Formats: sequence, C-alpha cells, structure tokens
Amino acid sequence: VHRPPLYVAVIGSSEATPEQIAAAEAIGRGLAEASAVLVCGGGAGVMAAACRGACSAGGQTVGILAGDDRRAANEWVGIALPTGLGELRNGLIVRAADAAIAVGGAYGTLSEVALALATSVPVVGLGTWEIEGVRAVPTPQAAVAGALELARGRTGG
Amino acid sequence: VHRPPLYVAVIGSSEATPEQIAAAEAIGRGLAEASAVLVCGGGAGVMAAACRGACSAGGQTVGILAGDDRRAANEWVGIALPTGLGELRNGLIVRAADAAIAVGGAYGTLSEVALALATSVPVVGLGTWEIEGVRAVPTPQAAVAGALELARGRTGG
Amino acid sequence: VHRPPLYVAVIGSSEATPEQIAAAEAIGRGLAEASAVLVCGGGAGVMAAACRGACSAGGQTVGILAGDDRRAANEWVGIALPTGLGELRNGLIVRAADAAIAVGGAYGTLSEVALALATSVPVVGLGTWEIEGVRAVPTPQAAVAGALELARGRTGG
Amino acid sequence: VHRPPLYVAVIGSSEATPEQIAAAEAIGRGLAEASAVLVCGGGAGVMAAACRGACSAGGQTVGILAGDDRRAANEWVGIALPTGLGELRNGLIVRAADAAIAVGGAYGTLSEVALALATSVPVVGLGTWEIEGVRAVPTPQAAVAGALELARGRTGG
Repeated sequence: VHRPPLYVAVIGSSEATPEQIAAAEAIGRGLAEASAVLVCGGGAGVMAAACRGACSAGGQTVGILAGDDRRAANEWVGIALPTGLGELRNGLIVRAADAAIAVGGAYGTLSEVALALATSVPVVGLGTWEIEGVRAVPTPQAAVAGALELARGRTGG
Repeated sequence: VHRPPLYVAVIGSSEATPEQIAAAEAIGRGLAEASAVLVCGGGAGVMAAACRGACSAGGQTVGILAGDDRRAANEWVGIALPTGLGELRNGLIVRAADAAIAVGGAYGTLSEVALALATSVPVVGLGTWEIEGVRAVPTPQAAVAGALELARGRTGG
Repeated sequence: VHRPPLYVAVIGSSEATPEQIAAAEAIGRGLAEASAVLVCGGGAGVMAAACRGACSAGGQTVGILAGDDRRAANEWVGIALPTGLGELRNGLIVRAADAAIAVGGAYGTLSEVALALATSVPVVGLGTWEIEGVRAVPTPQAAVAGALELARGRTGG
Repeated sequence: VHRPPLYVAVIGSSEATPEQIAAAEAIGRGLAEASAVLVCGGGAGVMAAACRGACSAGGQTVGILAGDDRRAANEWVGIALPTGLGELRNGLIVRAADAAIAVGGAYGTLSEVALALATSVPVVGLGTWEIEGVRAVPTPQAAVAGALELARGRTGG
C-alpha cells in the first residue's frame, strides 16, 4: 500500500559551528534516504546544511521562510514558501512536522522546540537546549532514527 | 542558467461545478507543463482538480491546509502542510505565490483575490469575482499563460 | 446582569474622502455610545476617524497593527497591538469582531469583508464593495444600528 | 507631556500553584499601579490571577486568546481578542509587549520566553525556566520593577 511520507523538521541556527553543519548535513541525508520530507526555515547554517544533505540523496526539502522574498531561501530548498511572518513562522514549521530534530540553536530554535512540545510534536535533540521532553541523541544517525520512530508513532504510520 | 520555478496559486472553492472542475484540471496540467509549482489550499473541488491535473503532467503541488491534520489534503497534494490557521491560511497561500488564478469561488476565494491584490500579487480570473484588478480570461489555457506572464513580470524572471 | 461588550470592527482605507471620514467618525461615536468596543487596523483615514469618534464619546478602541511598531497607531487608539503580520493581520481584526462595518475601502478592506463573510461574521457596508452578503446601509446611524443588531444575533447577546 | 502606556506581557501556565497565583496577582496589581497595560493569553491560572490583580487596581488587561470564542477569556480580561491560532498566538502576545514577565510555566510559556528573546523583547522571570537572557527576580515587586525598567529602555520611554 501507498503510505504518505513523514515530514520531519530540522531546526537550528543560521549561524552554526562546523560540527553542527556536518551533523545537519548527515541528518538531511538520512531523512532523504528514508524518504522523509525535510521541513525547515529555509535559511543558512543548520537549515542549509540539512537541505544540502537531503538534496545529495534526492530528498524533498521545504523552506518556510521568515521573510517575503523567495530568493532568501538557501539554494537546496526545493519548495520555498515566503511567509512574511518573521519569527512567528516558527510555529508553522512545527505545525507542518510529524517530528522535529534540533541541532544546536539559539532562541529561535528554542521557540520551535517549545512550540513542538506544547503541541505534542516529538523532538529529538543533538547538542541543543536541554529541555525536559526532548530526547537527546548522540549522533546524526540516532537523530534520524529517533525522529522517524517518533513521527511514525504520532501519525500511526 | 538555472532559473527557479514560478509558483502559481490556484484558488477556488471546495464545492465546484463540473465546468470549474474541468477548468481547474486543465489549469493544473498547464502549470505543470510549464514547470511551475502549484500552490493551493489543499482541499477538495477546484483545489483537488488542479492538483490532479498537475500530477497528471508530473508537476509539483503544495497544499497549505486550513486544519492541523495532514490527512485532510486531497490525494494529489505532493507537499501537504497543515497550519491550523483556518481561513487565515488564505493569506499564506497568497504570500507563497508569484501569481494567482481564481476559478469560480466563494468568500474564501474572494479573500484570497483581495489579499493578492492588496499585496501586489497579480490575479487572473476564470469565471470568478469581477473585481477591478483581476485579469479576466476566457479559457484555462489563457489563465495559465496570463498567470505565468504576470508571475514572470513580478519576479523579473 | 453584567453583559460583556460587543466588539465591532470598523474597516476601511487609510486614504479616505471627507465624506468617508465624517461617516467613520459618526460610526465610532455611535459605537461608543452603545458601549461597544471598536476594533480596527489602527491606521489612518477611516480607522483614525472612527477611533476619534469613539474617543469623543468615551469609548474603547483597539488597533491591531500591521507593523511591529506601536507608534504607528493613530493617536485615538486606546489599546495598540503591533503584530508584524502585514496584511495578514486583517484576518485577526475579523476574528476579534462580532460584526464589521465597512466604509469605502480598497483591497485590504475587501479582504476583511471576504474573510468576515467566510467566517460568518456579519458585515454592514456604507458606500463599500457591493458583495452579496454585505448589508448595505444608507447612513452611519444605520450602520451602527445594523452592526449591533447583527452582533447581538451572532453572540446571542 | 502625554506618554503612551507601557505594555507588559504576563506569561505563565493555566495550571498554577497557589504561590504562582499569589505572585501573578501581585504582579498584575503592580503593573496596574504603574499604569501599564497587561497583555496575556487570557486564560486561567497565572493569566487569570494577573488580570484579577490588575483589575483590583483599576488597570487595563488584554487577552489574546488561543481559541475563537471570546467567552473563553477569564472574567478579568478587559479586552478579549479571539484569534483561533492556538499556540501560534503566543507569538502575538510577545509582539504586543514591550517586556514580559514569566511566572512558572510549561512549554507554552517557554515558547513565549524564547520568542521574546528571539525578537529582543526583554524577559523577567519569577520561578520560571532558567534560560540565559531571562533576568531572574526574587519577588513580584522586583518582577514589576524590572519589567518596567526594561520596557522603558526598549521603547525609549
């Protein structure tokens, strides 16, 4: 039977360390290999790395942009959706996701983690805010596996 | 050179006449043949017909859903994004589009037409609200051609 | 018994004719005399005139602002709420209202009229878009009376 | 000279301990005594207590509601604005505030704290999430004083 894809948000800062970039890229690749749709804010840093990784494995990527100019999306965003909502678009990223993976991150990421937990979207964390309810994982591979497991549990998939 | 795709919103009612359904399907197919991304509310009626037409020609379709359940998307939506915003998601459809095509439609469609015109997103209309600023066209083919021309003019594409 | 106030949105353009300004001011005064809360976009033109009228009669006024700077509110807004949503805040004005009065108006006003009708918020119109479902009235006094009657019917008040 | 009021958000959970309730009530009273407008989610618990405190001192209270029914507001909300946005309305509370005071709180509160910090709205915390950037204070009185000081600094007031 046909089963619709899982949607996993990758959340993290537009400014990231080389380790975070490498991790995000591996996560994007892993999600694509599992045929999941990657949803993110469409910006630089962790978002761009995750999209680049997903593209390298032929995956689908969606960027829900803070601004109203589509050209602000990083070049690996397949579907770029300007919103003009600023940081309020963070909530839309969470609403669109079956699970979220947080990589590092600043206050914007924290808001997404919190909105996810407030709306029962499970969150896996890799070197991110230590918030009760976030499942901390040690590697990108564990992040992908954990997010997919939690997403399946949520969607009954 | 690589040129990013144009995004065209197809807006119209979830309850539609056979003529509107046929027109929407032809519009979806035409957009897909031009490699445009179809954005819509992801529901039934005009939205479903447009997505079906786009799928039949291998096009990309995005549904920005009113509710928070992804399964409410029609089956031809490729990327389904729940928002939970109700009718307020109409503004997001418009923000994500370089041009819009209105087919028939009720008040929700009118709100999208008005928001588009208020934010300088050009609108082509096929048997829809007669509002100054909407370019009325006689056929689905003219709707596609008009929307693509206006979208290119807006994006400088 | 204590009865909560009715909330009536006054919608119209930031650029208005002297006749529209006079009408909006009379509407604002009428709403205040009926102890209704006036909700609007908080801008100039019709919005400012309605707020001025309400203030002259000791009424409460709320401005749901498009931008993120509270100082953009007209000086007769009692409660000024920046949103940063641009035209998408139009939907919030409608959501906050038990009924709406449209005075003249451009595309932004039309979007509010349409969103109101799409969400079963009754609309009274004075020299505005002629849309089926809008109750056209000849005078500011009739606009106030009509909006209050429709608001009461909707809230069971 | 006339100076517009400061707007301070009081954020916290709808389920609160007696200590949190008492603190929120004192905070609401303190804000009202300083002629600040209290903005909150309009619900129960910390929100209701803060509004009650503000009302007891003749202050203004605004509830930006998650749902679309105005009657869900607690009885001390002066201006009740339904949004129908669910948890996404948290961002609007933050946008409407010059500073925020967090009292205890669950994930929704954390999302507001994070959105505030992400958008440069200063946050004072009383027994709440320990997040870098939140100014922790020991008493309701210190919360009010700190929030007003930070709000003045932000608005140049």
